[in-house]
Amino acid sequence: MQGVKVLAGVVGAAALLGLGIILGHFAIPKGADSPAPSISASQDLDLGILETIMEQLDASRIRENLRELSREPHLSSTPRDEELVQLLLQRWRDAESGLDSAETFEYEVLLSLPSQEQPNSVTVVDPTGNILFSCRRSEENVTGEQEGPDVVPPYAAYAPPGTPQGLLVYANQGSEEDFEELQNRGIGLEGTIALTRYGGVGRGAKAVNAAKHGVAGVLVYTDPSDINDGQSSPSQTFPYSWGLPPSGVERGSYLEYFGDPLTPYLPANPSSFRLDPDNASGFPPIPAQPIGFEDAKVLLCQVNVSVHNRLELRNSSNVLGIIRGAVEPDRYVLYGNHRDSWVHGAVDPSSGTAVLLEVTRALGTLLKKGTWRPRRSVIFGSWGAEEFGLIGSTEFTEEFFSKLQERTVAYINVDISVFANVSLRAQGTPPIQSVVFTAAKQIPAPGRSSLSIYDNWIQYSNRSSPVYGLVPSLGTLGAGSDYAPFIHFLGISSMDLAYTYDRSKTSARIYPTYHTAFDTFGYVDNFVDPGFSSHQAVSRVVGNVLLRLSDSLFLPLNVSDYSETLRSFLQAAQQDLGALLEQHSISLGPLVAAVDKFEGAAAALDERISELQKGTPDPLQVRMLNDQLMLLERSFLNSRAFPEERYYSHVLWAPRTGSVATFPGLANACSAAMNTAPGSAAWAEVQRQLSIVVAAVEAAAATLRPVADL
Amino acid sequence: MQGVKVLAGVVGAAALLGLGIILGHFAIPKGADSPAPSISASQDLDLGILETIMEQLDASRIRENLRELSREPHLSSTPRDEELVQLLLQRWRDAESGLDSAETFEYEVLLSLPSQEQPNSVTVVDPTGNILFSCRRSEENVTGEQEGPDVVPPYAAYAPPGTPQGLLVYANQGSEEDFEELQNRGIGLEGTIALTRYGGVGRGAKAVNAAKHGVAGVLVYTDPSDINDGQSSPSQTFPYSWGLPPSGVERGSYLEYFGDPLTPYLPANPSSFRLDPDNASGFPPIPAQPIGFEDAKVLLCQVNVSVHNRLELRNSSNVLGIIRGAVEPDRYVLYGNHRDSWVHGAVDPSSGTAVLLEVTRALGTLLKKGTWRPRRSVIFGSWGAEEFGLIGSTEFTEEFFSKLQERTVAYINVDISVFANVSLRAQGTPPIQSVVFTAAKQIPAPGRSSLSIYDNWIQYSNRSSPVYGLVPSLGTLGAGSDYAPFIHFLGISSMDLAYTYDRSKTSARIYPTYHTAFDTFGYVDNFVDPGFSSHQAVSRVVGNVLLRLSDSLFLPLNVSDYSETLRSFLQAAQQDLGALLEQHSISLGPLVAAVDKFEGAAAALDERISELQKGTPDPLQVRMLNDQLMLLERSFLNSRAFPEERYYSHVLWAPRTGSVATFPGLANACSAAMNTAPGSAAWAEVQRQLSIVVAAVEAAAATLRPVADL
Repeated sequence: MQGVKVLAGVVGAAALLGLGIILGHFAIPKGADSPAPSISASQDLDLGILETIMEQLDASRIRENLRELSREPHLSSTPRDEELVQLLLQRWRDAESGLDSAETFEYEVLLSLPSQEQPNSVTVVDPTGNILFSCRRSEENVTGEQEGPDVVPPYAAYAPPGTPQGLLVYANQGSEEDFEELQNRGIGLEGTIALTRYGGVGRGAKAVNAAKHGVAGVLVYTDPSDINDGQSSPSQTFPYSWGLPPSGVERGSYLEYFGDPLTPYLPANPSSFRLDPDNASGFPPIPAQPIGFEDAKVLLCQVNVSVHNRLELRNSSNVLGIIRGAVEPDRYVLYGNHRDSWVHGAVDPSSGTAVLLEVTRALGTLLKKGTWRPRRSVIFGSWGAEEFGLIGSTEFTEEFFSKLQERTVAYINVDISVFANVSLRAQGTPPIQSVVFTAAKQIPAPGRSSLSIYDNWIQYSNRSSPVYGLVPSLGTLGAGSDYAPFIHFLGISSMDLAYTYDRSKTSARIYPTYHTAFDTFGYVDNFVDPGFSSHQAVSRVVGNVLLRLSDSLFLPLNVSDYSETLRSFLQAAQQDLGALLEQHSISLGPLVAAVDKFEGAAAALDERISELQKGTPDPLQVRMLNDQLMLLERSFLNSRAFPEERYYSHVLWAPRTGSVATFPGLANACSAAMNTAPGSAAWAEVQRQLSIVVAAVEAAAATLRPVADL
Repeated sequence: MQGVKVLAGVVGAAALLGLGIILGHFAIPKGADSPAPSISASQDLDLGILETIMEQLDASRIRENLRELSREPHLSSTPRDEELVQLLLQRWRDAESGLDSAETFEYEVLLSLPSQEQPNSVTVVDPTGNILFSCRRSEENVTGEQEGPDVVPPYAAYAPPGTPQGLLVYANQGSEEDFEELQNRGIGLEGTIALTRYGGVGRGAKAVNAAKHGVAGVLVYTDPSDINDGQSSPSQTFPYSWGLPPSGVERGSYLEYFGDPLTPYLPANPSSFRLDPDNASGFPPIPAQPIGFEDAKVLLCQVNVSVHNRLELRNSSNVLGIIRGAVEPDRYVLYGNHRDSWVHGAVDPSSGTAVLLEVTRALGTLLKKGTWRPRRSVIFGSWGAEEFGLIGSTEFTEEFFSKLQERTVAYINVDISVFANVSLRAQGTPPIQSVVFTAAKQIPAPGRSSLSIYDNWIQYSNRSSPVYGLVPSLGTLGAGSDYAPFIHFLGISSMDLAYTYDRSKTSARIYPTYHTAFDTFGYVDNFVDPGFSSHQAVSRVVGNVLLRLSDSLFLPLNVSDYSETLRSFLQAAQQDLGALLEQHSISLGPLVAAVDKFEGAAAALDERISELQKGTPDPLQVRMLNDQLMLLERSFLNSRAFPEERYYSHVLWAPRTGSVATFPGLANACSAAMNTAPGSAAWAEVQRQLSIVVAAVEAAAATLRPVADL
């Protein structure tokens, strides 16, 4: 009954907001616990409030947040992680600047941790077993923050224990092609230790590929040319620059799937059914260990790798905070960031958490003053155990699957908020492009205040759109952060926002101290974003996008931007696969017809929106329209399209291994069928994947058509 | 853009209905093509309109409909089936009594038909192969309607062709237990022909079970004790009574799944990917043929069965008719019935189609006069190829999966509208119980006008509800008609309505001429429902329920009636499985907690509805509440719960083979695990199924909680 009480409170108050119109026919006439703005079914975005929030978002507060968040290492499920849970709860429950409510949701999840008693080791041994050289077991204590009981030593999470010993073979990035090339050169791989460098393929994939060729263990190091633009001496690196010190080691999860490994598709509640770890899939098949480039360069001959990682069931919490919507409390705008780090995690993820806390403070302050309440509900998530495989966010989507899928307007993810301080970077699905552009046009670029973030962005990353001409380039969403379960499993329009590099100035694969003990407050304060103006910029973009999504009467999801994507996927299929398909009597005609239908329906819907916006639309009519916009993304889901790919069900954004930039199921099926005989099972799979795409695009068009038509 | 135009027409008109209130803030101010009632976001059920419709529904019109519909055989995809498609289109497009629109949706589906050139045969042969006796190839021409090119001869659809010959073995109902018993008695089954009778297990299951024991062919006959209360002579049967004549043969589909066999989960559009029929599953493994009891009793010794059925891709149409909703056009009430029959199909399905046409006539007339337009859209479906395996309705749910799942309030099915003229029979999920009761209380029982349909019903079929005391018994939904894809695949609250027998007077498995050439207009007119008052009664119940669903401001779905079901499933699990589960350290505690949570949330929601109904609720608030009611059923779906069961994903209503009346996944897993060792894969499956149920009940509770809570 809580919803009713709140609504009553809201209705009874007197304050009247900018664009709101009192319609005077609301249900519940009395009761007022706290001052609140008037409720109106037509409540729309208030540009004055938006401006206020933009002004409130404060760089020095973000800096203080970050200092506190990254003061100590806060690996998932450690005491410091729990302290940060309490910090979030305290902030979100603050009487002056908190949300309506905040609570924790704890899961019991399977993590992988190095043994404290038996440290992992990598040694070079002579033929009689004498140790000639040992790799470092921890990073050099450069700033006084790299030592101590809470600094987890470098390790490959979920790599199985084992002590393989063998000749060292350099295997480049550890891709399938890399191992094939070694084999073609006559290099025996059986029983060897493969030395690979980060990049190219995922962490776990290196071990999977290696094991296929009989490799006994895998080492992974960070190459200076991949992370430091070639610089490798101590004096050229942190604390003298943002470069990775020679002793730095990238930790990371080597799990192939995301989510808790023992409870796929079920929330990891204590009582939930768990797979036997021996039967669970996704773990690397052989021991693996990451090392620094300092050690990588001296490795020779026979190497012994001792890995003593153990699997442990640990409790990991999400913290969820809610601001109830005044008008449509059953429509959710989600904004999340993970909390757990590998070590201090100043950049990853605390730069995001610092922004999250500042955004919630600014919104909470207006809320508690009674000057603002969003039209829709806003749910803030601080996810646990992301570093081990997006576990907290995935369990959340499993636990609340149906209601999130039915009610969520969009998911905003900010993991690392600032990689570097040069330009905005946004990834997302097409419907969110326009709202990100709108926000980016409204906010000055940090350090270049004559330019908007948008105008700055377009200088660093752009593309030529057949519809709009030159625009900033919106990236696509893989599975690199917590947006993955929202877009791939739930089909919720999602985005990931950050400030990033000038790619012409650095070829660093990612910011250099990523997942090392050098990712500290001082690193951010001195090298990543001195003055925190890029953090502030990201907080403003996020706040702006969030408010537009939560408060606009008409949802700012531009579904017709999907037309451009579908058209480009179709053209790629026609150009690069058309001849091949024709040889096998597979016609793209039905796909052409479906894409045409989608374009027509989207254009007609755009017109209808314009028409409605000219008048004073009935809120119920707008709600029906908004439901079409919100649910479009869902129509691209097919839970049976990719039975081998856990959680992936979005027909447009599932992982693509085939080289043609088209529908992933079709691209992958074509590359698998390419060299098989006509009539093979692989060619049947091409036809099946094509039918799945056609059905999805047809369903999407059906969602956009006038609602009383089929 | 069609939706906008219509809405404009509606808004512009002047007529004002009973409870409607003009709020005066609607979007589209002008344009009027036809007279229409005023639009109001608060538009509610108009009891006057309801009364008018009840009066309009006319027994003699239903009788005339039935005469026309059943005049000729109309097997799926035959020319007469196509003529009926045109009849439906013409009625639904009628200027005086039609709907807003009607169109056909054609699919290319795999049917199974007997060969015209090589008739199927069953003969008794002596050891040298001489034919001693031949079974009839068609039924006796008793009324002049049992012969002719359009009367499909008796056959088992989808049984493979073949000419097995072997000793005849009587195998009762052809269940697994029946064959085991034969084997235990030392009767060799290898290479035999099994004679089975209809009933007990499904048609296809008889062949599946038989094949497992080496049986070469299956005959299925209708036993007089199962269908005619034992009567078997020509003078005791049709045309002298409603009994099945000795020559009558029940046709039917022997397919194990429903939907087009070649396009599971995809609409059977011509371009859709199709399985190779050799790889498709669900077909009976051995030849099968149905026969009449006249022939069954003379079969002896060595029998030869020649089956020449062939698979054919045929075009089958659904006809869809739509009345656009005035206020919430994006909410659908679906009402459907299949059109195809085995022969004349007067009872099955034309008694339902005759009612469908009368209901659409009555509603269409009010619509065209401009005196009524429902609050929500109503979609009428005339499904094709139901007899072959619910094919038309299944393809419809596949093609429009996402929008139907997001927007459909409920599905009403009327297949056979009158089995017999004694009492109402309703099957459905708990949320529809109350609206069926309300309607049944409002309509006089045919032939007993002092009693309501409800009061009559409770005399013939009742149960003691812990909540309500004695109430009529609502049956559960299996997969016997077109409601199956709606409830099991889409999770839409569904019901099936009909008039039926006095079970104390007959033990007939179903009405005797079911699926035979004796199911004719004369049969209905003389024996099933002389005067058609039961047909009229069903049309009134359907019309009443439909109008309440389409027009009530608050959706009449009583979700808290699920509490009783969940509680009873839980109690059965505790009583009958609790000790066993405890032995294996499996606790029902989390399930108890989840059911408690559901009950609490449902009760609180009921209170909230009562509160809202006291005032003049904001239509947007009601919409949000209605969305909770509508979507509750969806929260019980889990597309990964039963990977072996095509389409079945409703965690409460999937097929149950285990004997305990509890959650089917749990019951089935327990019976499979019962005799396995602790720690077996079967016991892991019990735990997995329990977790799936807990997660579903938790999700259902979450759907009912205040919408801004998680």
